[in-house]
Amino acid sequence: GKVRVAVNGYGVIGKRVADAVSAQDDMELVGVADVVSDYRIRVAVERGYPVYASVPERSGEMQAAGVPVAGTLQELLAQVEVVVDCAPKKVAAANQAAYQAAGVKAIWQGGEKHELAGYSFVAQVNYAGALNRDSARVVSCNTTALSRISHALHGRGLARRVRAVLMRRATDPWESHRNGMINTAIPETKVPSHQGPDAQTVIPGLDITTLAGAGPYNLSHLHFAMIETTRPVDVEELRAILLDTPRVALVRAADGLEALNSVMELMRDLRRPRGDMWEVAVWEDALASDGREVYLTFQVHNEAIVIPENVDCIRALSGLEPDAAVSIAKTDASLGITR
Amino acid sequence: GKVRVAVNGYGVIGKRVADAVSAQDDMELVGVADVVSDYRIRVAVERGYPVYASVPERSGEMQAAGVPVAGTLQELLAQVEVVVDCAPKKVAAANQAAYQAAGVKAIWQGGEKHELAGYSFVAQVNYAGALNRDSARVVSCNTTALSRISHALHGRGLARRVRAVLMRRATDPWESHRNGMINTAIPETKVPSHQGPDAQTVIPGLDITTLAGAGPYNLSHLHFAMIETTRPVDVEELRAILLDTPRVALVRAADGLEALNSVMELMRDLRRPRGDMWEVAVWEDALASDGREVYLTFQVHNEAIVIPENVDCIRALSGLEPDAAVSIAKTDASLGITR
Amino acid sequence: GKVRVAVNGYGVIGKRVADAVSAQDDMELVGVADVVSDYRIRVAVERGYPVYASVPERSGEMQAAGVPVAGTLQELLAQVEVVVDCAPKKVAAANQAAYQAAGVKAIWQGGEKHELAGYSFVAQVNYAGALNRDSARVVSCNTTALSRISHALHGRGLARRVRAVLMRRATDPWESHRNGMINTAIPETKVPSHQGPDAQTVIPGLDITTLAGAGPYNLSHLHFAMIETTRPVDVEELRAILLDTPRVALVRAADGLEALNSVMELMRDLRRPRGDMWEVAVWEDALASDGREVYLTFQVHNEAIVIPENVDCIRALSGLEPDAAVSIAKTDASLGITR
Amino acid sequence: GKVRVAVNGYGVIGKRVADAVSAQDDMELVGVADVVSDYRIRVAVERGYPVYASVPERSGEMQAAGVPVAGTLQELLAQVEVVVDCAPKKVAAANQAAYQAAGVKAIWQGGEKHELAGYSFVAQVNYAGALNRDSARVVSCNTTALSRISHALHGRGLARRVRAVLMRRATDPWESHRNGMINTAIPETKVPSHQGPDAQTVIPGLDITTLAGAGPYNLSHLHFAMIETTRPVDVEELRAILLDTPRVALVRAADGLEALNSVMELMRDLRRPRGDMWEVAVWEDALASDGREVYLTFQVHNEAIVIPENVDCIRALSGLEPDAAVSIAKTDASLGITR
Ligand SMILES: NC(=O)c1ccc[n+]([C@@H]2O[C@H](COP(=O)([O-])OP(=O)(O)OC[C@H]3O[C@@H](n4cnc5c(N)ncnc54)[C@H](O)[C@@H]3O)[C@@H](O)[C@H]2O)c1
Ligand SMILES: NC(=O)c1ccc[n+]([C@@H]2O[C@H](COP(=O)([O-])OP(=O)(O)OC[C@H]3O[C@@H](n4cnc5c(N)ncnc54)[C@H](O)[C@@H]3O)[C@@H](O)[C@H]2O)c1
Ligand SMILES: NC(=O)c1ccc[n+]([C@@H]2O[C@H](COP(=O)([O-])OP(=O)(O)OC[C@H]3O[C@@H](n4cnc5c(N)ncnc54)[C@H](O)[C@@H]3O)[C@@H](O)[C@H]2O)c1
Ligand SMILES: NC(=O)c1ccc[n+]([C@@H]2O[C@H](COP(=O)([O-])OP(=O)(O)OC[C@H]3O[C@@H](n4cnc5c(N)ncnc54)[C@H](O)[C@@H]3O)[C@@H](O)[C@H]2O)c1
Repeated sequence: GKVRVAVNGYGVIGKRVADAVSAQDDMELVGVADVVSDYRIRVAVERGYPVYASVPERSGEMQAAGVPVAGTLQELLAQVEVVVDCAPKKVAAANQAAYQAAGVKAIWQGGEKHELAGYSFVAQVNYAGALNRDSARVVSCNTTALSRISHALHGRGLARRVRAVLMRRATDPWESHRNGMINTAIPETKVPSHQGPDAQTVIPGLDITTLAGAGPYNLSHLHFAMIETTRPVDVEELRAILLDTPRVALVRAADGLEALNSVMELMRDLRRPRGDMWEVAVWEDALASDGREVYLTFQVHNEAIVIPENVDCIRALSGLEPDAAVSIAKTDASLGITR
Repeated sequence: GKVRVAVNGYGVIGKRVADAVSAQDDMELVGVADVVSDYRIRVAVERGYPVYASVPERSGEMQAAGVPVAGTLQELLAQVEVVVDCAPKKVAAANQAAYQAAGVKAIWQGGEKHELAGYSFVAQVNYAGALNRDSARVVSCNTTALSRISHALHGRGLARRVRAVLMRRATDPWESHRNGMINTAIPETKVPSHQGPDAQTVIPGLDITTLAGAGPYNLSHLHFAMIETTRPVDVEELRAILLDTPRVALVRAADGLEALNSVMELMRDLRRPRGDMWEVAVWEDALASDGREVYLTFQVHNEAIVIPENVDCIRALSGLEPDAAVSIAKTDASLGITR
Repeated sequence: GKVRVAVNGYGVIGKRVADAVSAQDDMELVGVADVVSDYRIRVAVERGYPVYASVPERSGEMQAAGVPVAGTLQELLAQVEVVVDCAPKKVAAANQAAYQAAGVKAIWQGGEKHELAGYSFVAQVNYAGALNRDSARVVSCNTTALSRISHALHGRGLARRVRAVLMRRATDPWESHRNGMINTAIPETKVPSHQGPDAQTVIPGLDITTLAGAGPYNLSHLHFAMIETTRPVDVEELRAILLDTPRVALVRAADGLEALNSVMELMRDLRRPRGDMWEVAVWEDALASDGREVYLTFQVHNEAIVIPENVDCIRALSGLEPDAAVSIAKTDASLGITR
Repeated sequence: GKVRVAVNGYGVIGKRVADAVSAQDDMELVGVADVVSDYRIRVAVERGYPVYASVPERSGEMQAAGVPVAGTLQELLAQVEVVVDCAPKKVAAANQAAYQAAGVKAIWQGGEKHELAGYSFVAQVNYAGALNRDSARVVSCNTTALSRISHALHGRGLARRVRAVLMRRATDPWESHRNGMINTAIPETKVPSHQGPDAQTVIPGLDITTLAGAGPYNLSHLHFAMIETTRPVDVEELRAILLDTPRVALVRAADGLEALNSVMELMRDLRRPRGDMWEVAVWEDALASDGREVYLTFQVHNEAIVIPENVDCIRALSGLEPDAAVSIAKTDASLGITR
């Protein structure tokens, strides 16, 4: 039968995971849980997703606002095998006991620490190790992107050392009237930034250092990577490696895809749901090599990149599919990712 | 049979008109024409739309870039009854002679002057007058919105005088890396602004004055309207009138729809293609009346609002459907506009 | 002798008031008080302003951070005749008792309610009424601008009714990395907005209605006003009236001053401290009249516009100068405001 | 006597060079030349700078607009020993023949190629080589910053290899209503970017690679540098080196200087003219070292950083002062740069 799945926290990530789970023929979305009553959860209702109250005390308020509440999170957990927790950072970690008590396998997101699940997951890097585990953490958008790119070279024995600078988006579109910054950029003073060590939880032994900042835009992150190679890798070889890497897409400024916004416009034109881009988009005409190292510039659509990872992670934890490549291909086909 | 349609100029408006025409059961999209070779036109190819060269000399360049060119604009015109011209401002007007020579009915967009077609069209205001005409102009995004709202009151004999201030978006998303402004706002020094007189080409006799400015965002326009009424109109009546008006939607800040971005997020969540909003979104909790006048605040998604108007305009010019309400309902159903 | 002045709250407004008071030959800045220890208050130290701790408990922290604390707010109050309170909204109101107990006259800012002081002040409108009062409120940046402009016409019996739409800046420059919005605009759902009634506390009997929104910029506010006149007022007369109005400056898009940023660049070029603009800048080439009403578009530099008002208000409360025009001229000369 | 100086091109750089030259006791600003008639050049008139027409044909237009034109560029050149050319890129290079014909020494800006002058100048790196030359190029804002920082380590034999990512500002404040980008970021597809080789024209033999992008802000550039050292350099040593480096200032996020805007606010608070920052501001709390390399994050106020360099360059070309350190100290004192 299908694996029965719950999503707890129906925000930027949760609503996308819910849609993606619904699109899988080997999964059933039993329900979504949250604590809000506004337009966001009403869309879940319109979609026909049973809505549960993550916090029992909020149930009354939600019902008063016209949201038909199917029950409590606990009642939802009783019906599923896997819960994908997409609640905000600290909230999510606090749910661990409840999931264990309910005997439900749990997937956390990148806002949580590696230690919570003890396994940091990126499908194309370490799917096998997550097979039949009780829990795993799908790493953050930035770490997922760095892992995909670094592994493409490191997995082939080509990466000696990775340096990357990340210019993050200031906030997400839905909350861009509340948060943000105006006409400035903020450097992170924690140097190196946490993404480097985080990537090492996915790829042990990777020599990586990252610096980060954030700018006044909400569309995506922008990464600049400089990778010292163990032997000269020219642009042609680099391009071939990337073409052979799942969930990495090459885009070309020469085709008019010159900036974050134009790549996102392409996603809209391709009728992607919500204009989502699940792939890391690497600028083909910005690839470079000087013999010592290779240079890559790429765009990370933070709202979307971890969605296929969550789907694969459900398959790994539940043991539905032992082979990473098969799961990845299945997920990608369901979303419409083509190479 | 179906009315055969061409779209000339596959940009912000043209690509949406092409998709909307394709979605009508009484229309056939014969082809689209443009002069570019980049990612934008390649999506048309992927969609299966035959691509023509608007300017014969560009054909070679397009083919060299891998765009399969089905012929010239003239060859496309020979196959259709109606052409929707969505080329840039001055370019569009210059096509008039070609369309007349080909005996094809023409629809222009709001960038052109009223005089070009001699008929400025907003379906719910003046569909009937466009029936079987040779050409018409679908007015601009701002004028369409002002016409829908003003007509709702003026058509009921309730509008004595309309004053509106429009804060326009700086540029469109796809070209936001090239154009724009940073950390500023630009007032228009032409006062009153042109939108007032433009609305009068749709609603003759409307007493309307507009002022305009633009701000550093690309999501939508924001309008503030103050309408003196011929008799006291309270918020309840105003609300009822708006609910009875096609292509106007009420949104509530109390539901979390507090700003341009949150309303656009709802469109993404509703799986609207490209996140489009064809309706004027009026803030229900910002409606007010002081007995003398009513106040309305509304959002105009400039990329999308004129799309249903173009579809209706094709039906009017071709005489496919004599009744405005029937055409509007048909168009709205095809797009997924619900009330 | 000179009137002895304290400034409580050394933020956006407070630091400018302190500098302006220092520049007056009939005032002495005895000290400034605040609760912070960061770069902002250190500049006060560099300027040679004695620094006091607004909250005694914060004194230690301030000293530990290297800020030489001259004493507590209470100790500062004991040395002055007038305190200008520039603390954040609710904080400021809470100081009333302390000021009364110390027998010090108090000036509040626009974040406080009219009732706190019972007198809402704009020098060129109602200086006389504030003479020798115990307290007054210098109204907000937006209300100051609306009052100057409305009074120019209303004071001449020419304003029948004022309608204005205000597009506010999202946040102030110094905190633009923390607050803000990205790529959106926020309409206020309180309609009419509070600025209209607020202007009526300055100009009783003024028939005024305002709507407001905010956009993603931090340089200034942008106002659009439509003023019904009691008789036809043409642009020439309107221009003459504005030229005759204190603290209103005419700018011309034709001179390259086309937007908020270019006017602010002029202030930088004029070596204004902090690039401040104390005047309301009205676009001369956007002035219009249709016989029934006049139209004005103007820029309000929110950080600066109330500074001369505070200086005049000190003179009024302390009774230093009975004549508004004399005080205004003196203040303007000290700041470098020329007509 | 004083060295007689002309400034050709009174824009972002030119107007600042003119003010800085005026502030030197060993220089005389004979006049400024430009082709515009708008508010920008009128400020020069108000400042008392004689204004010349860079292009004779524009003289009439300028005079018609009320700008008192003192003569042509050629007439200005006849009166000076050094011209600082601050005209736009290609324009500036075209003036070379005129300068040679007039026997005037010339300084170009970073928009020009190294080859034009054959000497790329950063005072603290290579002042001596420019002594008595006929011309030199003050390098761009980004290259000036990279040179100051790299030289601090390279000049001490500590820099093995420099890698830097530059996030540039989109446009300058004065023209931010015309240019810009909205809600996006643009990666440069030329990889490595031109700043690396440009720094090598200042510091031959420097092993440096740069990548660049631009974001939607106009305040400054933001640089992230990773410098491999020839031996372990810890943060303490790095800090000491920077403190010993001219025109580099340390700022601390812990002092509230957390982002580009807060550092610029400090400049406003310090009463810097136009809020200018001539120093490279390096975040002290973001300095890091891992033994192999050191990491630096710094802000480059592009409008201002090259101004002291131009002043020193005038001194070098004219042979006024043989010692770099003396000239730098003199310039810095005149501007108010303290360490
Ligand atoms: N936004 C991104 O770009 C992004 C990308 C990758 C990973 N992540 C990670 O995903 C996780 C979720 O982030 P998000 O951006 O979707 O956040 P979000 O704020 O968009 O959504 C969180 C949702 O959880 C709900 N919620 C709040 N309290 C709850 C509770 N007690 N129980 C259940 N639900 C509750 C909120 O109402 C909201 O709908 C975080 O760990 C984050 O770090 C986010
Ligand atoms: N963008 C909006 O928000 C909006 C809203 C309502 C109405 N309009 C109006 O719609 C019309 C089109 O505007 P747009 O925003 O879609 O412009 P656009 O620039 O996005 O698209 C114009 C398209 O026409 C193509 N083109 C250029 N030269 C051509 C030629 N000679 N022949 C045929 N095609 C040519 C361009 O390559 C481009 O694809 C204008 O009249 C505009 O005022 C635009
Ligand atoms: N910022 C504007 O554009 C503007 C314009 C006109 C009027 N105002 C009004 O001026 C007042 C001050 O606003 P602002 O923008 O200067 O605020 P701000 O936040 O810039 O400054 C407030 C200062 O008060 C200090 N402070 C905090 N708690 C305090 C306490 N308990 N006692 C004394 N000081 C304390 C803060 O540290 C800060 O330095 C408000 O009433 C505001 O509405 C602001
Ligand atoms: N803006 C920066 O941040 C910056 C920083 C460092 C170096 N630079 C360099 O400085 C130079 C000038 O740049 P800018 O930013 O000051 O440009 P700008 O556009 O602000 O100023 C150029 C000035 O030259 C004038 N001009 C135009 N044509 C002219 C002509 N034929 N003769 C004389 N003057 C003419 C313009 O009217 C304008 O006032 C460029 O080489 C640029 O690369 C700029």
